[in-house]
Amino acid sequence: MAKKIHHLGIAVSDAAEVEKVFTLLLGAPPDHTEDVPAQKARAVCYRVGESILELTSPMSDDSTVAKFLSKRGEGLHHVAIEVDDIVAEMERLRKAGFQLVSDTPGTGAGGVLVAFIHPRSTRGVLVELVQPVRDAKAP
Amino acid sequence: MAKKIHHLGIAVSDAAEVEKVFTLLLGAPPDHTEDVPAQKARAVCYRVGESILELTSPMSDDSTVAKFLSKRGEGLHHVAIEVDDIVAEMERLRKAGFQLVSDTPGTGAGGVLVAFIHPRSTRGVLVELVQPVRDAKAP
Repeated sequence: MAKKIHHLGIAVSDAAEVEKVFTLLLGAPPDHTEDVPAQKARAVCYRVGESILELTSPMSDDSTVAKFLSKRGEGLHHVAIEVDDIVAEMERLRKAGFQLVSDTPGTGAGGVLVAFIHPRSTRGVLVELVQPVRDAKAP
Repeated sequence: MAKKIHHLGIAVSDAAEVEKVFTLLLGAPPDHTEDVPAQKARAVCYRVGESILELTSPMSDDSTVAKFLSKRGEGLHHVAIEVDDIVAEMERLRKAGFQLVSDTPGTGAGGVLVAFIHPRSTRGVLVELVQPVRDAKAP
């Protein structure tokens, strides 16, 4: 079951440049910045209540976010929902007919476990499941 | 300053039909459904942690969400940020160069005070400011 909005991803062409705009908008500087090699992306992260607002920019032209930018331009990109047990949740959703992008969880920003649901099964919304590391079970 | 993500708006052609998909996805039924005449829209609202995930569908062809759907299709539509004092925040943002859609706050779902910032000034993201009614000051 969905526990909270873990983060909201916003696709931008250059996160470092856009940082000024969002620092002004939110009235506070980013919490942290990090590279996410698995996604070939850079993330500038603002804490907003219990969630993170994440500016995501591409580190290479063949990254998912680069493809999104060339097709749709800058804007809201994905929503990440925190769950307790990502493997069980993936299994539940697969059985319910949702189309998972991968069979097993990958690694996201901060080392969390992540899995994406294809927007085809969620009315155009790219949904990411996130299980924080503190809840991770040994395999 | 941003207190939390008040809600995340998802544009869909028919919220009642899409409800089944999101109830399965989130593992729980909607918290409530309501019509928002000021936006000519219907909202199906799921509680996710401290935030709301809101499926918004048009009640008329000239509504903002109908125009969005015909241009971009279904998907993430806007993010609403909760603030303590919406009038002060609108003034702060206007002075900082952000383009507000209206000069004074309007009324959103549940009677909250709302104001929109044009996506032109926020890198393609439609941002809504929300001040809950419990914090509203007498004029």
